[in-house]
Amino acid sequence: MPTALSADLYELTMAAGYYAAGMNDLATFELYVRELPPHRSFLVAAGLDEALEHLERLRFTDEEIAYLRQTPNLSGVPGPFFDDCLRGFRFTGDVWAIDEGTPVFPYEPLLRVRAPIIEAQLVETALLAMVTFETSVASKAARVVGAAASRPVIEFGSRRAHGVGAALHAARAAYIGGCEGTSNVEAGFRYGIPVSGTMAHSWVMAFGDELEAFSRYTSLYGERAVLLLDTYDVVEAARRVVSSGLRPSAIRLDSGDIVELSRQVRAILDEGGLGDTGIFVSGDLDEYRIADLLERGAMVNGFGVGTALATSNDAPALGGIYKLVEIRRGGSIVPTMKLSPGKLSYPGCKQAWRVYEKGTAAYDVLSVCDESGPPGGVALLKTAMSRGRRAEPPLPLADLRARCRRLVGELPASLRCIDGASTYRVAISDRLSAVTRKVAGEGPAGG
Amino acid sequence: MPTALSADLYELTMAAGYYAAGMNDLATFELYVRELPPHRSFLVAAGLDEALEHLERLRFTDEEIAYLRQTPNLSGVPGPFFDDCLRGFRFTGDVWAIDEGTPVFPYEPLLRVRAPIIEAQLVETALLAMVTFETSVASKAARVVGAAASRPVIEFGSRRAHGVGAALHAARAAYIGGCEGTSNVEAGFRYGIPVSGTMAHSWVMAFGDELEAFSRYTSLYGERAVLLLDTYDVVEAARRVVSSGLRPSAIRLDSGDIVELSRQVRAILDEGGLGDTGIFVSGDLDEYRIADLLERGAMVNGFGVGTALATSNDAPALGGIYKLVEIRRGGSIVPTMKLSPGKLSYPGCKQAWRVYEKGTAAYDVLSVCDESGPPGGVALLKTAMSRGRRAEPPLPLADLRARCRRLVGELPASLRCIDGASTYRVAISDRLSAVTRKVAGEGPAGG
Repeated sequence: MPTALSADLYELTMAAGYYAAGMNDLATFELYVRELPPHRSFLVAAGLDEALEHLERLRFTDEEIAYLRQTPNLSGVPGPFFDDCLRGFRFTGDVWAIDEGTPVFPYEPLLRVRAPIIEAQLVETALLAMVTFETSVASKAARVVGAAASRPVIEFGSRRAHGVGAALHAARAAYIGGCEGTSNVEAGFRYGIPVSGTMAHSWVMAFGDELEAFSRYTSLYGERAVLLLDTYDVVEAARRVVSSGLRPSAIRLDSGDIVELSRQVRAILDEGGLGDTGIFVSGDLDEYRIADLLERGAMVNGFGVGTALATSNDAPALGGIYKLVEIRRGGSIVPTMKLSPGKLSYPGCKQAWRVYEKGTAAYDVLSVCDESGPPGGVALLKTAMSRGRRAEPPLPLADLRARCRRLVGELPASLRCIDGASTYRVAISDRLSAVTRKVAGEGPAGG
Repeated sequence: MPTALSADLYELTMAAGYYAAGMNDLATFELYVRELPPHRSFLVAAGLDEALEHLERLRFTDEEIAYLRQTPNLSGVPGPFFDDCLRGFRFTGDVWAIDEGTPVFPYEPLLRVRAPIIEAQLVETALLAMVTFETSVASKAARVVGAAASRPVIEFGSRRAHGVGAALHAARAAYIGGCEGTSNVEAGFRYGIPVSGTMAHSWVMAFGDELEAFSRYTSLYGERAVLLLDTYDVVEAARRVVSSGLRPSAIRLDSGDIVELSRQVRAILDEGGLGDTGIFVSGDLDEYRIADLLERGAMVNGFGVGTALATSNDAPALGGIYKLVEIRRGGSIVPTMKLSPGKLSYPGCKQAWRVYEKGTAAYDVLSVCDESGPPGGVALLKTAMSRGRRAEPPLPLADLRARCRRLVGELPASLRCIDGASTYRVAISDRLSAVTRKVAGEGPAGG
């Protein structure tokens, strides 16, 4: 569970600093990604739900405050910061966000947070970790699901996830990104995601006799049973299943030459009257291996994908940033911008718009947040939280998944290609360009 | 927090299957890794503490059981499984493990679990996720810390971690692997790890005037203050610090040409009488970039490393496996082994031994667990849990860190080289070879 201490220490040293300086003006931060990971043509926003829940629940316990008081780095901080500022601390700000399940591109704010600067700054690390992780996984899932070409993909990666908390959120994000379900039981319990599971090699080994293992399983699970064939010899196991009279819903292959084995098994099942028994494949799969298997004629009805989904293994971290874009200073609102070389950024509060042509997303526009936007453009950032309270109750996860499917389907086909050299255009509005030039020209003081 | 449902569904379908078959014999599983990730020459064991805590606390709540009962996949399971087996479920088994902080190699069991098979099987996913994640991070940390050549490394990766739970465990594992501290406040609170933090660019931007931002910070934190110089212009910022009379403990550089900037800043600080002010560097660092910076003469006193540590980004998942190696069947103990092609494994309970020559680890031996081991060999697996209770209270984390430092220091120097083509020998004892041949020869029945 996230706590108030799910933060980097500098968020607390700065909070104490702002408090000591008597400075708690409204500030706006935006959370976004500067570039896509290699081979990705888009991201899928996710993780907002946990972020909002964290903001709503954020409190410091007495124990946590006592710990902070004695932390050497905070030893110079006067008592009132702990007694007044942290005790009774609430997040009271406003949040705008791009809906979970929406394809997003670099520089588009996944989240915009406006709150007194102490509050807005304190939540930086937790928001980044929550939003960029789920976004990574949802993005990967959209690719994997696309490669599976309408065959169901089940997220199987809990054991490879970065701990059990990451496993839970990976299951959630993978489902939003298009997976049919997960093996993670907690994700079923907490989020209502369909859970599924077969048997492990250990089940087969525990009985010693493979057929006994299959029969025992089938006697309990009947036509739902999925039998794992590759503990010893796949082809022999398939023959045993057929001659035994068992009628599993599917068999699973987890190793070996899947193209060849799936064809042999398919033939054996079909000849044995088990034409309805599916072939489910798992074992170090990702979008590339799935595409390759299908291209080479593997006979597969569904995929279980683990590591690649749960860790987004080829891009295990997004370079998400949380930047101060605007602050109230001396009664006026000042757009801010970091000027260090090589790191472009845009000052001020922004909105992102998606412009469609004949039902396909043609390009996005990044604008100043109070601009009216391009004709026909759809505004992507919406109010998610007002004065510390969610604007709306969370949607059912299945709705987020359906949204993702629809919106990814509206992207240009070239972006959905997994080799992904294709780039989608995010234009900068004239007003945003002008503000950027102005702020850059004014130098360090930022206005 | 891990729960009883931090599991893959198949662990529950199998549990119900064993229960229905009246089969709950003692079984032994071993958790290990089949191969090292590319460029790694060793792993550092970590994650045991959370695993043992999970085993001690594992309970099913009424709500969880109610959820399981209505799960479609478990709909055929008779009531007593839920009412008798899950309600009142406790982990009552024994665990042997390699101490956290110990360098380990492929095929060496990080954990060996012996329990009635329902219990031992149910915990598979949680144990894998906990142990392989922390082991990944501790292993990466040992490399990064080695590259820093005695300069302190602080783990800064919480924002890039796979959620806030992963951030906490990454901080713990990075500390075991040799980091000096973490920015993660929760890790300080929960584990007593030293926390540190500086300021963000947003602090400097919030004040508009850079020097005011520095002065405000220093007035609160005095000689502990670390000032971030690269919001606008590093060299100018360094000159401002010197001429202002501020005496920060260090300055931080987070972007730009670190070799060049660190030398310029060092010269400015030294000429300005700030010879004691250190230079701390962060920003997309890993072991390779650190080694390169130092080789090219960067003037750096310490490093903050984020993504590379918190996600072990070049090897974000270890292929950890949890294999049934032995089961009691019909009154006798039967070693088991999966025979599918291309995946070597060794049957039966095993022990790993480290053999030293002149104070340096020369090779390891993997043996049958009741062998006496090679002369002078140090047994790596020790009793960690007996009948569901920890054998010993957890050691202070600083002791695990000291152990890691000592044991990594005893590895051959070639293994500590970050380009790591070097391989360490893990020999297989004659008895283990004989058992393996015997079990493989006996085929599917496994004895």
